Amino acid sequence: MSEKFKKLEKLLGYEFKDKSLLKAALSHKSARSGVNNERLEFLGDAVLDLVVGEYLYHKFSSKKGEHNEGDLSKIRAGLVNERSFAKIASSLGLGEHLIMSISERKSGGDKKPSLLSDALEAIFGAIYLESGLECAKSVFVPLVESEFKNIDKDVLKDYKTRLQEITQERLGLLPKYELIGSSGPDHKKSFEIALFLGDKEIARSVGASKKEAEQKCAMIAVEALKKGSK
Amino acid sequence: MSEKFKKLEKLLGYEFKDKSLLKAALSHKSARSGVNNERLEFLGDAVLDLVVGEYLYHKFSSKKGEHNEGDLSKIRAGLVNERSFAKIASSLGLGEHLIMSISERKSGGDKKPSLLSDALEAIFGAIYLESGLECAKSVFVPLVESEFKNIDKDVLKDYKTRLQEITQERLGLLPKYELIGSSGPDHKKSFEIALFLGDKEIARSVGASKKEAEQKCAMIAVEALKKGSK
Repeated sequence: MSEKFKKLEKLLGYEFKDKSLLKAALSHKSARSGVNNERLEFLGDAVLDLVVGEYLYHKFSSKKGEHNEGDLSKIRAGLVNERSFAKIASSLGLGEHLIMSISERKSGGDKKPSLLSDALEAIFGAIYLESGLECAKSVFVPLVESEFKNIDKDVLKDYKTRLQEITQERLGLLPKYELIGSSGPDHKKSFEIALFLGDKEIARSVGASKKEAEQKCAMIAVEALKKGSK
Repeated sequence: MSEKFKKLEKLLGYEFKDKSLLKAALSHKSARSGVNNERLEFLGDAVLDLVVGEYLYHKFSSKKGEHNEGDLSKIRAGLVNERSFAKIASSLGLGEHLIMSISERKSGGDKKPSLLSDALEAIFGAIYLESGLECAKSVFVPLVESEFKNIDKDVLKDYKTRLQEITQERLGLLPKYELIGSSGPDHKKSFEIALFLGDKEIARSVGASKKEAEQKCAMIAVEALKKGSK
């Protein structure tokens, strides 16, 4: 068992002082082993929200006036979710370490995104408990950075792809991006882009490049479409 | 200005190293003063989520098997919300310190729960930035404890009251609580309570006292009714 833990600890870049805490973090409630990872997950969820929130706060300064609270929230929502966490958990091979009932394992529990994501959160709840926030930060940030090389671009790119999927499926239309204009000196140019569906303009945004402005338009549109479909 | 800040700092029990950070935290976007408190609020929101989450994690141990992740989430939801934060903000007299446009103030902005709650979060984003999590914790926990003397009981009591309001309004019925049984030795007795609406049992729960079990039943019912009405 401890050999297996060593492999995980090496990938994490963190050695647990209290191995029973790691074991608890890996225990799905189906194992019925007395402790499970639900309380640690409760804590870890808040730990990672703050770790990612602070990371984005510093990474995307407000200097250019580009990243207001809404942008930060959206980029965070693209990172702090079951899918992203399950991806990070998979890169750590968490599935093989999960402790669960035989029937849960037989039904593919060790590959379920929800179980992987929960266990990842629980692990960071555990790291926080025994080593504090700074340590949790120093362990988690490299994992995020290696999974999501260009956080804002990846998340924003995702929005362009998602918008295209949505509009094609729902309306049979592809989004069209049109340059409205550019302004500012050459070294600090900004571009204004409008997004059309058919003849209708549905979003407009400014960015440091055409691409960025397009991606921000897509983000606005996806968020608006989400709300509309609720 | 700095005299006014002193009063606030005294009530907070925290002296800002960087007064411009406090000023930013108090600045509503309507002031258009260059900086506003939205980014600090984004950060502070996550800070307080973790501070409260960890506080509850330790306060309600899993020893008795009573406070699982679901209970903790519900108690936190009763604390981390606009109404509770606005209450704490009011106890600090935050309203009079808010920096906003004349028209926002005229329309009662300094009394709006959303603005008060946002500014409180921003203040804790600012404290976190200059002094770290432990400090934010040591400043916030006394404020919560003095506003909510018996956190679990207050939050749970709130559920019984809320359930009664809901069932009376929607169904013209009062909830009835019935003791199903008790078990365990005298010093560690537990009580099982069922909650009825008319003839229908709608929740059942176990607690260290009848009252606690009743309150937990009410919590389950309120959450279920919320989901049902979505």
